[in-house]
Amino acid sequence: MPQHIPADSVGIVEPQTAVFDEPLELKSGRVLPKYELVYETYGTLNEDKSNAILICHALSGHHHAAGFHSEDDTKPGWWDACIGPGKAIDTNQFFVISLNNLGGCHGSTGPTSINPETDEPYGGDFPVLRVYDWVTSQARLADRLGIECFAAVVGGSLGGMQAMRWSIQYPERLKHCVIIASAPKLSAQNIAFNEVARNTIMKDPEFHDGHYLKHDTLPKTGLMQARMLAHLTYLSDDAMGEKFGRDLKTDEVSYEFVPEFQVESYLHYQGEKFSTTFDANTYLLMTKALDYFDPAQYYDNDLSKCLSQATCKFLVMSFTTDWRFSPERSEEIVDALIEADKDVTYACIESEKGHDAFLIPIPRYVKTFGAYMNRIAKEDI
Amino acid sequence: MPQHIPADSVGIVEPQTAVFDEPLELKSGRVLPKYELVYETYGTLNEDKSNAILICHALSGHHHAAGFHSEDDTKPGWWDACIGPGKAIDTNQFFVISLNNLGGCHGSTGPTSINPETDEPYGGDFPVLRVYDWVTSQARLADRLGIECFAAVVGGSLGGMQAMRWSIQYPERLKHCVIIASAPKLSAQNIAFNEVARNTIMKDPEFHDGHYLKHDTLPKTGLMQARMLAHLTYLSDDAMGEKFGRDLKTDEVSYEFVPEFQVESYLHYQGEKFSTTFDANTYLLMTKALDYFDPAQYYDNDLSKCLSQATCKFLVMSFTTDWRFSPERSEEIVDALIEADKDVTYACIESEKGHDAFLIPIPRYVKTFGAYMNRIAKEDI
Repeated sequence: MPQHIPADSVGIVEPQTAVFDEPLELKSGRVLPKYELVYETYGTLNEDKSNAILICHALSGHHHAAGFHSEDDTKPGWWDACIGPGKAIDTNQFFVISLNNLGGCHGSTGPTSINPETDEPYGGDFPVLRVYDWVTSQARLADRLGIECFAAVVGGSLGGMQAMRWSIQYPERLKHCVIIASAPKLSAQNIAFNEVARNTIMKDPEFHDGHYLKHDTLPKTGLMQARMLAHLTYLSDDAMGEKFGRDLKTDEVSYEFVPEFQVESYLHYQGEKFSTTFDANTYLLMTKALDYFDPAQYYDNDLSKCLSQATCKFLVMSFTTDWRFSPERSEEIVDALIEADKDVTYACIESEKGHDAFLIPIPRYVKTFGAYMNRIAKEDI
Repeated sequence: MPQHIPADSVGIVEPQTAVFDEPLELKSGRVLPKYELVYETYGTLNEDKSNAILICHALSGHHHAAGFHSEDDTKPGWWDACIGPGKAIDTNQFFVISLNNLGGCHGSTGPTSINPETDEPYGGDFPVLRVYDWVTSQARLADRLGIECFAAVVGGSLGGMQAMRWSIQYPERLKHCVIIASAPKLSAQNIAFNEVARNTIMKDPEFHDGHYLKHDTLPKTGLMQARMLAHLTYLSDDAMGEKFGRDLKTDEVSYEFVPEFQVESYLHYQGEKFSTTFDANTYLLMTKALDYFDPAQYYDNDLSKCLSQATCKFLVMSFTTDWRFSPERSEEIVDALIEADKDVTYACIESEKGHDAFLIPIPRYVKTFGAYMNRIAKEDI
C-alpha cells in the first residue's frame, strides 16, 4: 500500500461492471432494454452471505465511496470517512457494495451512454427514473452478487430515500435500514429549489433539449448555476458565516459586478468544477427522482401505513443545522415508524455543517453510527 | 372616489418628480451629474412640518406604496395594508413620503434613464450605489420638500437598512427609526443567494454587459430565474407547504421536465411576470447595495458603537419564520441599541409567512406597529 494511503483505508479499489441484458420496465412505463451498473466492493463477503451492506448515493454521488483508484489518487471516495477497517461501516466485518445509480454519469447506464436504438448518446431521451426504479435495479445487482438479504441498506439524503424504499419494496431483503439526513418526501420549498436549478440548466442555450453531446457542447453555465444554488443549500448559514463571513478577496469593494466576497469565489469555484465533471441530464434526472419520491402516496398518504410494510430495524439520523432536510423531516419518519410499531433508533446530531454534515466525520455522528453498525455485526450477521 | 376604492385608502394618488441639477458624489467616487427622484405623498404636512414620515422601499419596491393611480387601477400600492386613514401609518395624522430610489426602474434616475454623456440609456454604465448614497439623495428630497426632521423613517428589509443608515448619517433629522424584517449586514449565505441571482442575469446571452436596451432586447430568462430564486427565499417552508404542498397541476406526474407541481408553476408565473416589468440592471444594483451594507465596518465592526451615533428612538420588528433575515438578525440590532443605551422597542411577530410577512397585514404586527406610530403622533409631532 502506498505511503500516503492511511492504515484505516480500504486501499486501492477497482470498479466493476455488471451487465444486465434483461429489460427493465420503469415506473414511467418506459423500458430500458439493457443496462450496466458500475460498482465497487469493500471487505469480504462471509460464507453465508449475511454481512453485505448496500450503500445508496445522493444526488451527485457515485460508486466510488471509499478507498483510492490508484496510488496517485489524491482524494479517497466520497464516504471514506465512514467506510473502512475500524470505521463506522467496518470493512473488517462487512462486505460493502456501492454502486453508481442508473441514470448516473460515472459509468452506469445513463444519459451519456449510447442509446442502442439510435447509436447516439441518450441525452435528453434517457427515461425519467424514480427511486423505485433504482431500488429494483439495485435488487438485480444484489441477485447477481448472490446477496439474498442485506445486513443493512444505508444512505444519506437521496440515498436515505432509497434505503427507505428498500424497506417497503423488498422487506425480506434487508435486516436494517439506515436513513441519514433524509425526508419521507420533498417539501414545496425543496421542489422549488430543484425547479430553479433545472430551469438554469434547461434554459442554457447550450442545452439543446438535452442533446448537447450531439452538438459537441455542454450547458456549463446552467449546470454551474444549479450547483452554486444547490451547494448553498447544503451549507448552514452558520457554517458559511464561520467559513467565509463577509471577508473580501481584496482590501476594498470594487463597485464592479465581479465576485469579491470570499463566499462568492468559493461558490463560483464549486460550480465551475462541477459544470465540467457532472452530466447536466443526470442532474435533471436526480432532482426529478427527488421531487417524485413520496412512498406514502400509495398508502393513503399515511407514512405509518406505508412503513408498516417494513420488517427490518431502523437507524434514523439528522443534523441540527440541516435546513435542506431538517431534523423535523427525519422525525416524521421516526414518528411513523413508532406508530407502525417498528424498532427504530434515532439520533439528532449537533452540527453547524448543514446538510453536508452527513459526509463529515463528526465524532458523535460517527460514534453513534458505528455503535449501531457494530451491533449489527455482533447480532445480525 | 370610485366605488371599488375602500374608505381606508389614501385614494387616487399622483406621482411627482423632483429634479436635482446639483451633482451627487457617490460613495464609489463616481458622480451623478444630475438626477430625478419620483415620489408620492399621502396625507397633509402640518404647519410646523413635524409630521413627515419617510418610507424606504425594499429590493423590488418603488414609490407607489399606497392608494391607486387611477380609477381603473386594480391593485393598490405595495404597502397599502399599512398606509392610509386609520392604518398603522395613519395618513390622518402623518404626511407620508414614498420615493423610488436612485438606480430604480420606476421613474427615478436609473439604468434605463438616458445618460447625458452618451444620449443612450445608462444600462451597465450606471454607477453602483450604496445605502449611504440613497440616504444622501433622500435627504436632498427632504430638503426640497422642506422637511428638516422626520417624525420617523420607516422601512422593511433593504428599506430597514436605509432607515438604520438614516439614524447614524443624519441623526438630527429623524425622531424615530422603524426597522422591520431587516439585518445590520448580510450574512455569507445572504450574499451567496444574491450572487447566484446576479450570475443568472449576467450570464443570460441577452444581457450584453448590461446594454440590452441598446441591443433592443432584455435578459428575461436570467431575471426570471433570479426572481424565482429570490421569491422562494422570501417564503417560509411552512408557508409554501400550506399554500402548495405537493399538489400537482394534473392528476399524475408526467415524467417530463415540465413544471408539474403547483409550486413550480407559481414560481414560473412570478418569475415571468417580473422578468418584463423590472429592470435587470436595477436588480443587480439593489443586490449589490444589500451586499455592501455594513455600517458597523466604519466603527471597528462594533454595531453598538455605530448605532451610538443615533439620537432617535427605535422600533425593531421581525417575523418568526423569516429565514432571509431571521429574528436573530433583528436582535443583533436590538442588542446593539441596548448596549448603546438607546430607546428601543422590539417585537418578534409570530407568522408563517417568511420574509414576505412585513408586507402582510398580520393583526399583531399591524397592531404593534400602529400603536408605536400612534404614540409618535401623540407625543412627537
